[in-house]
Amino acid sequence: MTQQDISCGLEYSLTPDIQECVSEALQANYSFIVTPLIHPRFRRPYLPHRIPAGGFTRSDMILSPQDWTNRIVARVSPYLTVDAPSPVVQKRHEYYLHEELLYCRGLGVPAVMISLNSKHNTNLARILQTYQETSNFPTLIWTCVPMFCKRTLRNSEDLEDNKCDVAYNETWYWWSRFHQNMNWDKRVGVVLEISADLPSNDIIKRWLGEPVKAIILPTHIFHNNKKGYPVLSRAHQQLVVSMVERDAQVIVSGARRSNIEYYLQYLFRLWQRRPADTPMFSFARGWEDYLQTPLQPLADNLDTHTYNVFEKDPIKYNQYQNAIVKALADLQKKNSCQHTLDKESLITNIKIEKGQGDSESDAKTPVTVMVLGAGRGPLVRATLNAAEMTNTEVKIIAVEKNPGAVVVLAAQVRELWCDRDVTVVPGDMRYMNLSPKADIIVSELLGSWADNELSPECLDGATCLLKPNGISIPCKYTSYVNPISSSRLWAAAKIACLGDSQKMEKNLETLWVVYMQNKHDIAECREVFKFSHPAEGIKNSEGETMLDYRGLPLTDNRRKTTVSWEVTQDNVMHGFAGYFDCALYGDEMLSIVPSTHSPGMISWFPVFIPIKTPLRIHKGDKIKATFWRCVDSRRVWYEWIVEVNDNATVLHNPNGRSSEMLL
Amino acid sequence: MTQQDISCGLEYSLTPDIQECVSEALQANYSFIVTPLIHPRFRRPYLPHRIPAGGFTRSDMILSPQDWTNRIVARVSPYLTVDAPSPVVQKRHEYYLHEELLYCRGLGVPAVMISLNSKHNTNLARILQTYQETSNFPTLIWTCVPMFCKRTLRNSEDLEDNKCDVAYNETWYWWSRFHQNMNWDKRVGVVLEISADLPSNDIIKRWLGEPVKAIILPTHIFHNNKKGYPVLSRAHQQLVVSMVERDAQVIVSGARRSNIEYYLQYLFRLWQRRPADTPMFSFARGWEDYLQTPLQPLADNLDTHTYNVFEKDPIKYNQYQNAIVKALADLQKKNSCQHTLDKESLITNIKIEKGQGDSESDAKTPVTVMVLGAGRGPLVRATLNAAEMTNTEVKIIAVEKNPGAVVVLAAQVRELWCDRDVTVVPGDMRYMNLSPKADIIVSELLGSWADNELSPECLDGATCLLKPNGISIPCKYTSYVNPISSSRLWAAAKIACLGDSQKMEKNLETLWVVYMQNKHDIAECREVFKFSHPAEGIKNSEGETMLDYRGLPLTDNRRKTTVSWEVTQDNVMHGFAGYFDCALYGDEMLSIVPSTHSPGMISWFPVFIPIKTPLRIHKGDKIKATFWRCVDSRRVWYEWIVEVNDNATVLHNPNGRSSEMLL
Repeated sequence: MTQQDISCGLEYSLTPDIQECVSEALQANYSFIVTPLIHPRFRRPYLPHRIPAGGFTRSDMILSPQDWTNRIVARVSPYLTVDAPSPVVQKRHEYYLHEELLYCRGLGVPAVMISLNSKHNTNLARILQTYQETSNFPTLIWTCVPMFCKRTLRNSEDLEDNKCDVAYNETWYWWSRFHQNMNWDKRVGVVLEISADLPSNDIIKRWLGEPVKAIILPTHIFHNNKKGYPVLSRAHQQLVVSMVERDAQVIVSGARRSNIEYYLQYLFRLWQRRPADTPMFSFARGWEDYLQTPLQPLADNLDTHTYNVFEKDPIKYNQYQNAIVKALADLQKKNSCQHTLDKESLITNIKIEKGQGDSESDAKTPVTVMVLGAGRGPLVRATLNAAEMTNTEVKIIAVEKNPGAVVVLAAQVRELWCDRDVTVVPGDMRYMNLSPKADIIVSELLGSWADNELSPECLDGATCLLKPNGISIPCKYTSYVNPISSSRLWAAAKIACLGDSQKMEKNLETLWVVYMQNKHDIAECREVFKFSHPAEGIKNSEGETMLDYRGLPLTDNRRKTTVSWEVTQDNVMHGFAGYFDCALYGDEMLSIVPSTHSPGMISWFPVFIPIKTPLRIHKGDKIKATFWRCVDSRRVWYEWIVEVNDNATVLHNPNGRSSEMLL
Repeated sequence: MTQQDISCGLEYSLTPDIQECVSEALQANYSFIVTPLIHPRFRRPYLPHRIPAGGFTRSDMILSPQDWTNRIVARVSPYLTVDAPSPVVQKRHEYYLHEELLYCRGLGVPAVMISLNSKHNTNLARILQTYQETSNFPTLIWTCVPMFCKRTLRNSEDLEDNKCDVAYNETWYWWSRFHQNMNWDKRVGVVLEISADLPSNDIIKRWLGEPVKAIILPTHIFHNNKKGYPVLSRAHQQLVVSMVERDAQVIVSGARRSNIEYYLQYLFRLWQRRPADTPMFSFARGWEDYLQTPLQPLADNLDTHTYNVFEKDPIKYNQYQNAIVKALADLQKKNSCQHTLDKESLITNIKIEKGQGDSESDAKTPVTVMVLGAGRGPLVRATLNAAEMTNTEVKIIAVEKNPGAVVVLAAQVRELWCDRDVTVVPGDMRYMNLSPKADIIVSELLGSWADNELSPECLDGATCLLKPNGISIPCKYTSYVNPISSSRLWAAAKIACLGDSQKMEKNLETLWVVYMQNKHDIAECREVFKFSHPAEGIKNSEGETMLDYRGLPLTDNRRKTTVSWEVTQDNVMHGFAGYFDCALYGDEMLSIVPSTHSPGMISWFPVFIPIKTPLRIHKGDKIKATFWRCVDSRRVWYEWIVEVNDNATVLHNPNGRSSEMLL
């Protein structure tokens, strides 16, 4: 939540005295009013070609400019139906609508509210796009739709569940098609008029994925509690909180059955009583649906601010420490077994060179732990802690390629870790040969989509640093996706500026890191790519692992995976949400997959993987997505394609033309 | 047809000696051969990571560079299935495919042929796009599909019609989805392997709309005639001619049941015996599917070459002349009636001012004919001819705004028409006041989509030049559209260069004038906008015509029309074909609507109206298209939107941002 409190407005269906209405609403602590622009006193001429001398509404002098630009949401006359079947009516209403829109532009109101009353809105979409095209300052368009379409029930005797679903589905279609006609313009939002009965959870969730700018609460859906104050049903309370969490404002509308202040006070209380924010939620405040290009820590060097943010994670390094503790403990166990075995063999073979042998085998060889990509040292710290906890002697080698971070590491070795065995080795882990080899390598090279910061390539390149049967922390990671609907993310990706304006296709062929808020999950998460370390090499026909020119196992980090889902609800697919999880060691995990998210961990936002043209999908459809991870000598990139029944998208990012990770 | 003859190739399934094959084929008059690239002697290793010392095929020294670049279509090894379920097979085949493609690039063969064997081709599409992205010189990709999928019939006992349709549909889907995955790339064409039995006409027509580069005729579909020569069935003959007319080449393939020369001789004869070209067909030769931006004769002045082309039309001015003849005849009839009436009234009212009256009423007042937009005079000529034919005295006023054309007109008045009453008036017909007023105005201001060169605005502006109840030739015109499938036109529009490279959206929001060849009509033509002249003015609530500041009737040339179609076949919609027809006078018509096309008229090619994202449509779907004609003080433009069931395109060309006609 960016706002600390609910922002509420009050709707007036008639404002004979607009000044008085604004005063009343502000006095009752409402932030704005929703009001028709046309003064009821002004009857408009039958024919638009004569301008009435009296103008068509009140003078704009009666409110201050600040009030117009801050306090007024202008509602277009609800009787205007520019998609009416009669061409005469249509043309007349077009003229009036145009007149009202131009008036709104002149007044500088922050938003114009327009109601959809049927599925026919193409002409409305056309007029509004012309309005936006010809405006210097874009006005927000608030498209008002009821949650429930009574009309679809008109012919049915009763409210069977089935029919109700149709009625709730209907109005979503009005909005969704209209928004599609507007090319998912992000200046166009929806205002949802809440009904007394609520639809199924699935339908509510779908609405939560739409850019809902406000919800209208008619006073008749409140009931009075014992003390006579207006309150909402539990289901309605939940809906309001979910909506406000996604930045929706609330508009109270309809006949006043109670003091108008009471509604607002109730809503404020409702908001204050909501469950506390999760750490991630607090951390992400202000970053909701804000797209960032993924980091390229291999090609670029991270800056100090980025390190600052990542080192703050309260959970991540804890998990690493636990994993290192377990790994050290297991090593100790193994070594002591080995030790016992050695001793036993010595005994059975009768003593040879006694005296020397005993003292040597009892002296502990320190465990060599290499921290690959040590940054400013958080994993060195975790290793030192783990060593203390397990009472292990460790020799730590911290490899880091970023000279800026090496400075910090070296300073810490001098000042903090002077009594410990920590060595800093500057350089790229892929092109290094160190001795002794490591018992354990520890790294944190994962991006939001697991391998997208090239962890596989880095760790494969560092294989020669690890003893045979050595331990890699992490040892396994997997990327995940699920198809989502989010016009907001899609529109944001479309117009995002990537510098090179020539390459228009770039934007929708790129992975974006983003804390997603305004999205709807069309289906559950599925695995995409899996990697494990040390990686298994490619085997030849005789079953032997093949080696490269440096004698390292030949690995193949290219991948191709096809994932599919059955769709359970009509929807519009705009792309995928991408996540990862990772096994550090044993059962110590890190996860940003929603269902298994490591509690409290804040280091990674998910990724948004857009598709070029949103796909309309229907209940029962099968979505089939294929992802490729491609590798050449210089870079790594993803390509993807989506098929829905017999339809398909184009191939995204062929040959990495729009986005790539440099090796 | 651009070529004078059929271009035929010969397929070899094995070429142990490629040199000999080329010689044999050329000697038999074939233009090229289709051959696998991989020499059968070279067995490829199980694992791709070892390069066999012997290379993987023959040396390229055995053919001349000219032969490689002109005579060889390289067929990729048919057993390569890069979309195989097994990842191991997939990777190995990817490697081989890559190897063969690079070899093709190295040899510079003009086309690479690849077979589709199932509906799973996304990985193939990915690899080929990478290949194209990384090539400096694009290779044509010939995608080979059978016309008929035997596999779909495997489980059915018999060949019921229904099942057959499925089998014929199946392979179209393979191709169509693959082409969609390739984003309808125009370097990717289809090669259709003709089956012994042919599908329904509807399915053949759909194939004619695809970019068929070649058809493969297996020798087993020929049968021997009485003399023992190979011939085709009537249906096959027709198919071959239709395909070759659309620039497809023919490949003879399979076991040689007859001398290989006989097949070619038969095909040549077949082509020579085809029906003669229509005048339009001859005229359009070389312009097939070539996109042009529509003329703007109002904003720009036409050049002498354009006049040259348009004046050559053998039909158009004939029709005009017929129309003027009828109009003059009707005027004579009306005038003589009037004359008689006048005389009768004179007689009944007893004679007043005798002597003068008689001689005046007998002397013929000349009929005033204004040619508006006279160009270099073809309509003046038609009017002079019509006057002679009806023995009418005419006074011709030729209005022309193009100074270049005025020069030619004035010269003709001096030199050719010196004994006739022809006056040239330079200037814009919309801002003129001439006297006497015209009995007839004749104009030719129509574009390929009727009003798209602003005829309505010009003629409305010239209303004051016409007598009340005067005649306008033309008196009525209508634009038409039908939805079409044409990946070729769509791909051409997408990459067409409109100068302003910033505005990527321009291309697919513009009308294109084009002689369409490679397209398939999804449904029949329907009316869009209608105009008539003199235009009826807008009436006020009392039923009186409203007037503008010049005292001319206020007209409204904005239009909005929704057209819909029921789809009878699965297909992909890429846009619309647009046409017009026009009533000159009485029943004299001009039409470029296919079903009523004026025979022999060549002045107009149709328009192609693209949609931004091709829509996949299914049998039973309803296509609903809405077109707007928008007008402001400076310009006129079209906007359009398409809805298919619950799906919709975006609005095209909002506010005329991409294309407009200047007033």
